Amino acid sequence: MTERRFEGIGVTPLSGVGTVVWYAPDAELDDPPEPDEVDADAETARFEEARESAREELKAERERTAERVGEDEAAVFDAHVQFLDDPQITDGVSEQISDGLPAEHAVQRTFDRFVEQFEGMEGRMAERADDLRDVRDRLVRVLSGGERVNLAELAEGSVVFAERLTPSDTAQLDPERVAGFVTVTGGRTSHAAIFARSLALPAVVGVGEELNEVEDGAEVVVDGTDGEVIVDPAEETKQAAADEEEVEIRSEPVSTADGVEIEVAGNVGTAADLGPAADRGADGIGLFRTEFLFLDRQSPPDEEEQYETYLEALEAFPDGRVVVRTLDVGGDKPIDYLDLPDEENPFLGERGIRRSLGPDADLFETQLRALLRAAGSDSGGNLAVMLPLVSTVEEVRDARETLDSVAEDLESEGAEYAVPEFGVMVETPAAAFMAPDLASEVEFFSIGTNDLAQYVMAAERGNEHVAELGDYTQPAVLRAVRATVEAAEGTDVWVGMCGEMAGDPDLTELLLGLGLDELSMSAVTVPQVKQAVTETDTEDARKLAEKALSAGTKAEVRRVLTENTQS
Amino acid sequence: MTERRFEGIGVTPLSGVGTVVWYAPDAELDDPPEPDEVDADAETARFEEARESAREELKAERERTAERVGEDEAAVFDAHVQFLDDPQITDGVSEQISDGLPAEHAVQRTFDRFVEQFEGMEGRMAERADDLRDVRDRLVRVLSGGERVNLAELAEGSVVFAERLTPSDTAQLDPERVAGFVTVTGGRTSHAAIFARSLALPAVVGVGEELNEVEDGAEVVVDGTDGEVIVDPAEETKQAAADEEEVEIRSEPVSTADGVEIEVAGNVGTAADLGPAADRGADGIGLFRTEFLFLDRQSPPDEEEQYETYLEALEAFPDGRVVVRTLDVGGDKPIDYLDLPDEENPFLGERGIRRSLGPDADLFETQLRALLRAAGSDSGGNLAVMLPLVSTVEEVRDARETLDSVAEDLESEGAEYAVPEFGVMVETPAAAFMAPDLASEVEFFSIGTNDLAQYVMAAERGNEHVAELGDYTQPAVLRAVRATVEAAEGTDVWVGMCGEMAGDPDLTELLLGLGLDELSMSAVTVPQVKQAVTETDTEDARKLAEKALSAGTKAEVRRVLTENTQS
Repeated sequence: MTERRFEGIGVTPLSGVGTVVWYAPDAELDDPPEPDEVDADAETARFEEARESAREELKAERERTAERVGEDEAAVFDAHVQFLDDPQITDGVSEQISDGLPAEHAVQRTFDRFVEQFEGMEGRMAERADDLRDVRDRLVRVLSGGERVNLAELAEGSVVFAERLTPSDTAQLDPERVAGFVTVTGGRTSHAAIFARSLALPAVVGVGEELNEVEDGAEVVVDGTDGEVIVDPAEETKQAAADEEEVEIRSEPVSTADGVEIEVAGNVGTAADLGPAADRGADGIGLFRTEFLFLDRQSPPDEEEQYETYLEALEAFPDGRVVVRTLDVGGDKPIDYLDLPDEENPFLGERGIRRSLGPDADLFETQLRALLRAAGSDSGGNLAVMLPLVSTVEEVRDARETLDSVAEDLESEGAEYAVPEFGVMVETPAAAFMAPDLASEVEFFSIGTNDLAQYVMAAERGNEHVAELGDYTQPAVLRAVRATVEAAEGTDVWVGMCGEMAGDPDLTELLLGLGLDELSMSAVTVPQVKQAVTETDTEDARKLAEKALSAGTKAEVRRVLTENTQS
Repeated sequence: MTERRFEGIGVTPLSGVGTVVWYAPDAELDDPPEPDEVDADAETARFEEARESAREELKAERERTAERVGEDEAAVFDAHVQFLDDPQITDGVSEQISDGLPAEHAVQRTFDRFVEQFEGMEGRMAERADDLRDVRDRLVRVLSGGERVNLAELAEGSVVFAERLTPSDTAQLDPERVAGFVTVTGGRTSHAAIFARSLALPAVVGVGEELNEVEDGAEVVVDGTDGEVIVDPAEETKQAAADEEEVEIRSEPVSTADGVEIEVAGNVGTAADLGPAADRGADGIGLFRTEFLFLDRQSPPDEEEQYETYLEALEAFPDGRVVVRTLDVGGDKPIDYLDLPDEENPFLGERGIRRSLGPDADLFETQLRALLRAAGSDSGGNLAVMLPLVSTVEEVRDARETLDSVAEDLESEGAEYAVPEFGVMVETPAAAFMAPDLASEVEFFSIGTNDLAQYVMAAERGNEHVAELGDYTQPAVLRAVRATVEAAEGTDVWVGMCGEMAGDPDLTELLLGLGLDELSMSAVTVPQVKQAVTETDTEDARKLAEKALSAGTKAEVRRVLTENTQS
């Protein structure tokens, strides 16, 4: 049998071998019977029953997801429950039933009308179309009593193939049993991709319609590194995948070939991510996002709840550093108890430190209290505090003033506390231009390449029309990174990077050449980046960086990198 | 009588003396009569009549505005006509009339309901509230036959005082008769402010409620430079205002005190702006925006129409340079015949050159054909072509390729044409970082400080929560400007600036110190900036710039500037 290869987007640098299990929740409905054969009252009762079952299912899946993936991802199920209760939807279904349709057809038609409305839109609105489809399919499945693959109980070594995987689907997948998954649609930022990264599953998305040629039960290699799906793989191919899987997990800090120690840390978005980060050998946490503590609730977490969570992080890395980013929200995230403005360009609006020094000053103070107390606990680990979206020196001074006054309060209360390391995210061009001045105000910089690339290029990464432009290998982005590092050279300020760029092992040598001291990333690539660090020679890296910095185009940067790999 | 001074926001650096004429269109309605005293049919007929009258008025004002201010500003009246025809509004009014209200009360209540909906929103949505109020007041006035100050026929030397001035109001003002205006509300970007700048009227906006203390008929000085309103002014105050008015209009190019010639040009948004720019002594046009040619119509302008317009601009400046910016639209501007995406962050989306090299490639080619033909005409004046929102070297190469192929086509057709000077706007941080590479691709840079400040600071200038942050005197913005100029030094590339910053005479010395060769601005401040150029010594300016570049905060930059003025 010859191999068949399919190209897609690899979302984790992992490979897996297994057996294809097609997962197709969207069963086609038969044509509806004649209207006079339908008992409207009975159908209404069936619909009500189905809504209740769906509600129960959603509740269970919400809990499961919160526990296994995180609160942030679990919140999507709340939106699904809202659709079940939306009067526009329930009235629509009732109307279709009165018009003589059976419940499943009434559901399908009503939802399809709303799906259509959202489908043409961009971003968050388009995601709502996905959510609506998800709820529609759930209701239709419950109503038709149809079989579907039980994702929670797949045979060990299954590779799930699907048109797309919804949050409901991914929440059911058991990473212990599943060897990976492949989807027809989806991109690097789809729910499925995020899920794969946080649970370290081999995955390829966006393969396209030709994936449908692959038969259920076929043997397959999922190569997340190259974004390839190899059906009926040759022995060598399987062996290569298995070899690639065997990346060494190093739990000790690593050094370059010439002996420069580089901190390789994990990015964490929920308490549930701490375990995987430690398991993959992260030296610490370079970016502890605290939004999950504040999302999907009716009031902000109190000092005690925050303190406990920060302690948990410190305990997970008793010998490492945990860099906690203070609350980073703005007009693009809905939080009911905050008065977030409705902005035309939320990414250029009141977010990050701007809110913490403005309308959310109280929250900021409470968060700092919890952080200073955690820093003073004897739980081991070093806590550091990092400010998001800094664009002026004044902001740093103002925040430091708040921190000092919080420390004073804790002192006078006789509370246990310590003043943590204090640093800023460099993610606005302003911060890069002001880095020489910011260097006298802080102990560290952490470059957030996702936002930095977005602002430097004036191109939103979530906007498909310009996403290509916002790539972090654009020479302008490299120059902004270099300007930041350069400003810290000769000072005590260390410079890390916590954007997606830091987790790309193909760029590790370049980043070390640019002078970074620390790299922080999704848990999954920690071993690959540690490996790349050990293979890097600092002087060669510096030369590579010099070449990349003088490149005039992204294509030239890529060529410099490719030539380097081949030499 | 002692002077009374009120502080507001000066929107033009001009002063005027005159007599207060309060303009209060929002007459209070009496309580409505009892429902059974109202003849619903008669009221419906009155409402229909009022709609027709309002429609006629709007048509006339639209034409007047298009002629005197420009198509862009006139377009607002189309929106007003749409409100007159909106079924939600007309149905609302009919309903209120059937409930027993007279037409004027029915209009008031119906509109107020919609005004309220829009009022809480930001930006464009909030502007719709203003438009709705404008239409409401027009209808209520027509219905109640109430008197209002006829803004078109004010006595000479009138200074209009108002709560706010709507587009309908400003369109009626006769700049020959009015000595200035002052409003309680409004900011630097309000309709009234834009109007004042394009017609060079002294104006102060956003004074606040205390303005209501000023009596009709009082004598007043409007000081647009300092944003002050002085009621019952002393003789010296009036004299000072009159002196300040007497800024010299220089129609020849000017040089610094030590003899360096600096080009001082005008920004132009419609053909109607050409006259005022020439009248105020602009050496040429540093930014000819072409959007007005494309807005508010059902299909794009053809090559011939564009050619004629570009000729008109060249004829207005027979000895000068006219820098035409190619079409700069994106998701934040509605143009029906373009398929503009609905974006979550339109300022980080598909706009400017990104569209011209993508979905609007045909329009771009047509525009370049018209431009090359105009450049080859014997109408005098030098035409230059400038690309908006450049963020990569590839974009410039691609655009140049299109230009070359257009030139080839024209050549083979035997058409008269010339290849114009070719340059880019530097308005993304990427362009500033890539300036050394861009300098080998173009003949000139023009720094657009409005967008540049917005992207460098990651703060939208139209968003009141962060507008302060996006100020162009932020040291990070100055450093981006300096990096751009530095990249061009030692090359043949000249560097201009066409953002608002260029028109601030208090910054002229700093900008020359940063190394700019050309400054382009709203017509109104051309004389002041020319004056400032003649007073500048290049070496002193360079030292001033050095100090400003090493400032760590905006406050420090301001201090450096103030100390310089005082020394």
